[in-house]
Amino acid sequence: MALNYVSNFQALLLILFPFIASVASDPDIVSDFITPPNFFGSINGSFFTYTGLRSTVSEPTPQTFKVTKATLAEFPALDGQSISFAVLEFPPGGINPPHTHPRASELLLVTLGTLEVAFIDTKNVPFTQILRTGDMFVFPKGLVHFQYNRNHQQPAAAVSAFGSANAGTVSVPTSVFGTGIDDVILAKAFKTDVATVMKIKAGITKP
Amino acid sequence: MALNYVSNFQALLLILFPFIASVASDPDIVSDFITPPNFFGSINGSFFTYTGLRSTVSEPTPQTFKVTKATLAEFPALDGQSISFAVLEFPPGGINPPHTHPRASELLLVTLGTLEVAFIDTKNVPFTQILRTGDMFVFPKGLVHFQYNRNHQQPAAAVSAFGSANAGTVSVPTSVFGTGIDDVILAKAFKTDVATVMKIKAGITKP
Amino acid sequence: MALNYVSNFQALLLILFPFIASVASDPDIVSDFITPPNFFGSINGSFFTYTGLRSTVSEPTPQTFKVTKATLAEFPALDGQSISFAVLEFPPGGINPPHTHPRASELLLVTLGTLEVAFIDTKNVPFTQILRTGDMFVFPKGLVHFQYNRNHQQPAAAVSAFGSANAGTVSVPTSVFGTGIDDVILAKAFKTDVATVMKIKAGITKP
Amino acid sequence: MALNYVSNFQALLLILFPFIASVASDPDIVSDFITPPNFFGSINGSFFTYTGLRSTVSEPTPQTFKVTKATLAEFPALDGQSISFAVLEFPPGGINPPHTHPRASELLLVTLGTLEVAFIDTKNVPFTQILRTGDMFVFPKGLVHFQYNRNHQQPAAAVSAFGSANAGTVSVPTSVFGTGIDDVILAKAFKTDVATVMKIKAGITKP
Amino acid sequence: MALNYVSNFQALLLILFPFIASVASDPDIVSDFITPPNFFGSINGSFFTYTGLRSTVSEPTPQTFKVTKATLAEFPALDGQSISFAVLEFPPGGINPPHTHPRASELLLVTLGTLEVAFIDTKNVPFTQILRTGDMFVFPKGLVHFQYNRNHQQPAAAVSAFGSANAGTVSVPTSVFGTGIDDVILAKAFKTDVATVMKIKAGITKP
Amino acid sequence: MALNYVSNFQALLLILFPFIASVASDPDIVSDFITPPNFFGSINGSFFTYTGLRSTVSEPTPQTFKVTKATLAEFPALDGQSISFAVLEFPPGGINPPHTHPRASELLLVTLGTLEVAFIDTKNVPFTQILRTGDMFVFPKGLVHFQYNRNHQQPAAAVSAFGSANAGTVSVPTSVFGTGIDDVILAKAFKTDVATVMKIKAGITKP
Repeated sequence: MALNYVSNFQALLLILFPFIASVASDPDIVSDFITPPNFFGSINGSFFTYTGLRSTVSEPTPQTFKVTKATLAEFPALDGQSISFAVLEFPPGGINPPHTHPRASELLLVTLGTLEVAFIDTKNVPFTQILRTGDMFVFPKGLVHFQYNRNHQQPAAAVSAFGSANAGTVSVPTSVFGTGIDDVILAKAFKTDVATVMKIKAGITKP
Repeated sequence: MALNYVSNFQALLLILFPFIASVASDPDIVSDFITPPNFFGSINGSFFTYTGLRSTVSEPTPQTFKVTKATLAEFPALDGQSISFAVLEFPPGGINPPHTHPRASELLLVTLGTLEVAFIDTKNVPFTQILRTGDMFVFPKGLVHFQYNRNHQQPAAAVSAFGSANAGTVSVPTSVFGTGIDDVILAKAFKTDVATVMKIKAGITKP
Repeated sequence: MALNYVSNFQALLLILFPFIASVASDPDIVSDFITPPNFFGSINGSFFTYTGLRSTVSEPTPQTFKVTKATLAEFPALDGQSISFAVLEFPPGGINPPHTHPRASELLLVTLGTLEVAFIDTKNVPFTQILRTGDMFVFPKGLVHFQYNRNHQQPAAAVSAFGSANAGTVSVPTSVFGTGIDDVILAKAFKTDVATVMKIKAGITKP
Repeated sequence: MALNYVSNFQALLLILFPFIASVASDPDIVSDFITPPNFFGSINGSFFTYTGLRSTVSEPTPQTFKVTKATLAEFPALDGQSISFAVLEFPPGGINPPHTHPRASELLLVTLGTLEVAFIDTKNVPFTQILRTGDMFVFPKGLVHFQYNRNHQQPAAAVSAFGSANAGTVSVPTSVFGTGIDDVILAKAFKTDVATVMKIKAGITKP
Repeated sequence: MALNYVSNFQALLLILFPFIASVASDPDIVSDFITPPNFFGSINGSFFTYTGLRSTVSEPTPQTFKVTKATLAEFPALDGQSISFAVLEFPPGGINPPHTHPRASELLLVTLGTLEVAFIDTKNVPFTQILRTGDMFVFPKGLVHFQYNRNHQQPAAAVSAFGSANAGTVSVPTSVFGTGIDDVILAKAFKTDVATVMKIKAGITKP
Repeated sequence: MALNYVSNFQALLLILFPFIASVASDPDIVSDFITPPNFFGSINGSFFTYTGLRSTVSEPTPQTFKVTKATLAEFPALDGQSISFAVLEFPPGGINPPHTHPRASELLLVTLGTLEVAFIDTKNVPFTQILRTGDMFVFPKGLVHFQYNRNHQQPAAAVSAFGSANAGTVSVPTSVFGTGIDDVILAKAFKTDVATVMKIKAGITKP
């Protein structure tokens, strides 16, 4: 574990191999933990600590919906541990638009205010609920879901856990209308006209 | 395995327990195969055979895009085998609208005509390709993707395999605009107005 | 899904089969979610909601260390979703004694006060850290760890997520000194005398 | 993902590390896809495309049984996607001899002619079936199975999917009689004489 | 856990449901252990104990090769624990014929005498070794392998562990030549004549 | 597989990358076996052989309890095979102190003498048994367990298998009292006084 002894030459090699880490997989590992190839500090308690969520405690709710993640990308010690967190902050009337997580279910705990939540299963049955502070809700893996703070006076917040170090997020509006898919294809897919597609695209891609 | 000897009483019990099968999971099983609780025939070669795709061979391409599935629901012998098939048939200009599969990657093989395919990864990078007959394409698990037969004279077809007995499908247009989500929520999510949402909804839910 | 139509006879059978649910496993499932065999309500948003943590929000920190769990046992919708939560509440000077979770890593987020945390890996190397509100720490699966509120004036609290619906807890003091293991065996194991073992046992088992 | 920027020095290193890729495993990955260490192009739609099966569409059935594979070795984008394909082509009277796949079940779809198929389970029970075009059959993981085109006038063909990027194949005749196992051992194992073993070996190893 | 309180009616139901247990899978379970549906005793230390291998200790080596298994079928407490044992006893000159295990690798420890062992990988490369007492050898999952006691004076024995509660065994001679596969198919597959196939079949199926 | 052709330069690189192997995971692999990055010999039968347990056969039982392991660290061919062994040797009155294995269940076979064994489940229920030679016992993953040779005249021995190449061991006495955890924390946790903690610590850490 004495990675602090690695030479400059090894450091160079590791900088050249950033993608080796992408071989790692989410299932059980055969060691207590995994040290990333490009980690050069000594392994102590700090390696297992992440302080990037402090701001979500100390600062006021932002003006627009905001997700602060603590996943494999931000917190390398999660590699192989099959778990991650995100803090969701909603201003009054704020929404986390319809999205899916390809690699894990989400377990949400409301920590401030109230939230209207829903997911739609693969039979197109919607499941919706209004949650108050302290309530939990589970969104099964890969299903479209959203959260909405219908209260236009008070903010809301939640902490969500995922059973993967990197659950991933597919934002439906951006993925579908913000990545350059042909207007004709989208018009056919959504059974509408090109003008409507162009209008939605304009809203999505507006900075 | 002599399930042909089950009594009427047992049959009654099994009819009452159709949901027990839903406990099964996709990972490795500890037997050669799994006999469904509500299966009463004798286990022979027919149990491992599925003939429901014959029509996709013998009949002409339908007038609208059509998926014919051979998954756990249609072919119970797939339970625990982590594999399934679907046949996709595209009339000229036909489209399989943007969708995701929550529980498996898809490996597609074009068997007729040409197909334009694409998926968008979790960084919102689109990957697109034009495939001719005999070409294959892999759509990673849980990502939004579609297939389009841009040729307006010739039909197209493909066979797709999934690394799960029940990969599931989330159709984006139907899941988002066809399940009764509040117009205001959708307008906010897609950064558009309620009138546009209502227009798309009307197209999606039209029989 | 229309489990609300089950007959009384089926209800009787299900009451007799409570342990069938224990066949379920934590890996990926082949359905969107799993309905427990002994569930008779209709499946709607409430099934995916858990309100048992509300008290941890509304009530003051208890006088002794307290864990409030939201796992498979309390929240059946977690079956097959590979995720669960627990809220940890520490009075001033409170401790969560050394323990392990046999089936998942733990990801802890401090929501109140400060906590001193540590785990010991399988090479007997300790990793320790002092966390303030908003900090996170990951305890790898199966390793001995504890949390301590060294502050004797202020309470502390944390929310922990686990990458299993039922991570399980092995409390070292109770498991080793509170379950009737022979005094001679424990004296040998801890390289001490029987009197010392009896003294510790008396403390552990005192109501 | 800008692997097109890698230096010649990195290319040299990667050529020296071809076996690192073998560390990858088939279970769920924690990224959308995996880029092989020895891949230097830019990642676009072509990376997810495989054209090596085109010949099975455009060319006539070969004179002897032929398997054309699209697995991890031929199509690196399959890494971590738990799925692969093979096209099987049978001349009249052609056979795919008894074999097993150590790492996945096989789901076969007859695309031309008819096939006689069978597998034998671990209790030595054979399951056999005659399939016509459009029929499917599942061969559970690791069990001995074969396919035979009993029709001596018409060719047959099938496409098979596997729930692993590299299911592997153990050909029973070659593995047992074509790899130099001692004649005495084989004679004992098959309860026959050395002369019979030598005769079979001669047939198997004949070019 | 108080299964000792189950009623006769429940016992009747469970006798009717022996195949429910087959739904269980080998991956991680979400409980400490699994009680079989058809188990009616109280759960104590005896449930986790198996005494069926005692005879392999107390009795002399049998006259023909013998496997004594301690797997899920014989020892139900192994359900969900991903581990099993077998004791292999070889008389002088005894052989365990070529076979595969579809669901786990095998780790063998020679406890008496010497053994010649081999496996053949999926590239048809043989790996062979002569082991003495105390030596271990690993046979990867699903590959053809055998063990042979070439010593014609002394017996040999080994204990093998498998990373599955039910690894399964496919005996190549029996599976291929002892289950009624058509002579013509086997003659084609092994590139020999029907007479040779009939001769081998006669040896295999002789009681 | 011709790793014997690697250059000195590659050898140098591999020496610099010893921790890459730690990325490997225990689940199914997509190759027959995994060659470690830092392995330079040719791959033949010796690679799959481990002789480090010979001493447990040839030498007398040691004076103190001794574990001899054959796991990933000692036997690299186990990588990806999900299986390992350990030989446990107990002098008269010898004990294997309470411990857990974080990554696998243990299946123990008594090969000499008698052993008293026990584990405690997550509900703090103890399961104990007295085993004689030839008996087996399964210790579920992650639970505290021990083995004790209560016979003060005769030695005992066992071979244990684990469903992981690296199950890991957490020794409760050492992990809790031998790694420098603060006396005050331990006194609180074990509901005793600092003097008792210091006394136990002194015994544990005494060489």
